[in-house]
Amino acid sequence: MAALSEQVRAELIAVAHELADAARSATLEHFRTAGLTADTKETDRFDPVTVADRLSEQRMREILARRRPQDGILGEEMGRQAGESGLTWVLDPIDGTRSYLCGTPTWGVLISVADETGPIFGLIDQPYIGERFEGGFGRAGMTGPHWSRALKTRAPRPLSDCIIMSTFPEVGTAEEGAAFHRLAKQCRLTRYGTDCYAYALLAAGHIDLVVEAGLQAYDVQAPIAVIEAAGGLMTDWTGAPCPQGGRVLAASSPEVHAAARAVLAG
Amino acid sequence: MAALSEQVRAELIAVAHELADAARSATLEHFRTAGLTADTKETDRFDPVTVADRLSEQRMREILARRRPQDGILGEEMGRQAGESGLTWVLDPIDGTRSYLCGTPTWGVLISVADETGPIFGLIDQPYIGERFEGGFGRAGMTGPHWSRALKTRAPRPLSDCIIMSTFPEVGTAEEGAAFHRLAKQCRLTRYGTDCYAYALLAAGHIDLVVEAGLQAYDVQAPIAVIEAAGGLMTDWTGAPCPQGGRVLAASSPEVHAAARAVLAG
Repeated sequence: MAALSEQVRAELIAVAHELADAARSATLEHFRTAGLTADTKETDRFDPVTVADRLSEQRMREILARRRPQDGILGEEMGRQAGESGLTWVLDPIDGTRSYLCGTPTWGVLISVADETGPIFGLIDQPYIGERFEGGFGRAGMTGPHWSRALKTRAPRPLSDCIIMSTFPEVGTAEEGAAFHRLAKQCRLTRYGTDCYAYALLAAGHIDLVVEAGLQAYDVQAPIAVIEAAGGLMTDWTGAPCPQGGRVLAASSPEVHAAARAVLAG
Repeated sequence: MAALSEQVRAELIAVAHELADAARSATLEHFRTAGLTADTKETDRFDPVTVADRLSEQRMREILARRRPQDGILGEEMGRQAGESGLTWVLDPIDGTRSYLCGTPTWGVLISVADETGPIFGLIDQPYIGERFEGGFGRAGMTGPHWSRALKTRAPRPLSDCIIMSTFPEVGTAEEGAAFHRLAKQCRLTRYGTDCYAYALLAAGHIDLVVEAGLQAYDVQAPIAVIEAAGGLMTDWTGAPCPQGGRVLAASSPEVHAAARAVLAG
C-alpha cells in the first residue's frame, strides 16, 4: 500500500474523533442507568453485552458508511465488513463492559485504523471522565478534564520499581496466570480492574507494564498505536507483533519490556 | 450529647464541602505529575505516602482550626487532636494512595464528622473526575461531571446476581482471604482495585457488596455515613458497628447483608 498523503491522514484523524464523539454520547446515554441489563454471549462465563455496546458500534458504523465507505471494519459487536482501500477500522465500542456495568470509570472506547502492517492510528476514549488518548501519524497526546498533555512513557527502571497492571488476577490459563504472577511478584506494585485504561496510563507515563492474555484484535489495536506513539512497546509475550491479540505485553521502554519478557518465559 | 440544631448541621455540611474543595485542589496539584514520589511508612510492605497526602490533610486542618476549633480531628497523616464539642472530624486526605500513584481515578478524599455514636455525616470526593458523594443529616446525593442525583442502594437480589468489590484479591489474613473468596465465588461478578470508590458505587446503586479487612477508622467512617444514608448497611463481618474499621461488610440491603454475613461466617 502506498504511503498515505497528509490529507488522508488528517481525514482519518478527524473521522476517528468523530467516531469517538458519537461513541461517547451513545455510551453515556446508558451508563449508570437503573435499567442496564446484561446479556450473556457465552454460556460458560459472565460476559455482559449491553444495549449501549451495540448502540455505540452502530453509531460509529453509520459515520464510517458516510465518511469512509471504502474502508473495511472489524467491530466487537457486529463483526467484519470488507473494504477496498486497504485500510480497516477496528472498533471496540465498550472495552471493559464489566466495569461499565459496575459504574467504574475505567472502561473505554477503542478506535483504530490499520493497514496491512497493523494499526497506524489509535484512540482510547473514556467518556464519563471526558478523557481521550491518541497516537499515530506523528501524534501522541491526551486531553482531559484538567489538562491536555503530550503522551510519553516512563523512563526505564528495574522491575523491582515497576508498576504492573492486568484486568483480572486470574490471567488467562493456569500456565499464563503462573507466568503473570511470577512477573508481578518481582514488581513493586500490582493493580487490577483497569481494563483498557491501563494502556492509557502506560502511554501517559504513570505505570510500567500491562500484561494480559486471551485478548482479541479489537482489544489491542488502539492501545498498540497509542503506546508505540508514546515511546513504549506492545507485543506478544515473545516480543512478536500482536495485532490479533492473544498474550499481550505492553511496556514503557525496551529495557523493561526485555526484563518482563525474560520472566514471562520462565 | 444533645441533638444538633439545624443551624449546626448546616454549618457542618458547609465546612465538610469547604474541606473537600481544599483537598480537591491540593490533591490535583500533584496528581499525575512526573516528580511524584512515595515514602514508605511501613518497612514490611509498600505503602506510599505522597506530598499530596500531607498537603491535603494540612489544608483541611487549617480550615477546621478557623471554622470548627471546638471539634476534635482524627486524620490519617497527622493523627488525633482532641476537641471539646463532642464532635470529631475524621479525615483520609487520599484514600487509595496506590491508585493515586498509578494515575487511576478511583482514589478519593474521605471526610466525615462523628459524635459518640459514630459518623453522622460523610462525604467521598473524587477530585480528578469531579465527583462528590455525600450522606447524613437527611442528605443522600452525588454531583458529578454529567449529572447530580439522589443516592439509593440497589434492591435486594440473590448473591448469585450480586456484584462484589474489594481493593486487593489478597484480602486481609489467609483466613480472611478464604472467607472473602468463599463469598466472591457465590457472586455474579468480582472486581478489584477500586479503593473507596467502591463504597460510592454501592451507595449509588451500581453494585451490591464491598468486603474488606484490616481497615482503619478514617477508611470507613465517611463510607458508613454515605452508605447508610443511601439505604445500605455497613458493619463488621458479624453485623456489629465498625466505626473503628477492621473487617468491613457493606451491602446494598439488609437481605444481601445477611446472606453475605452467613457465607463469611463459614
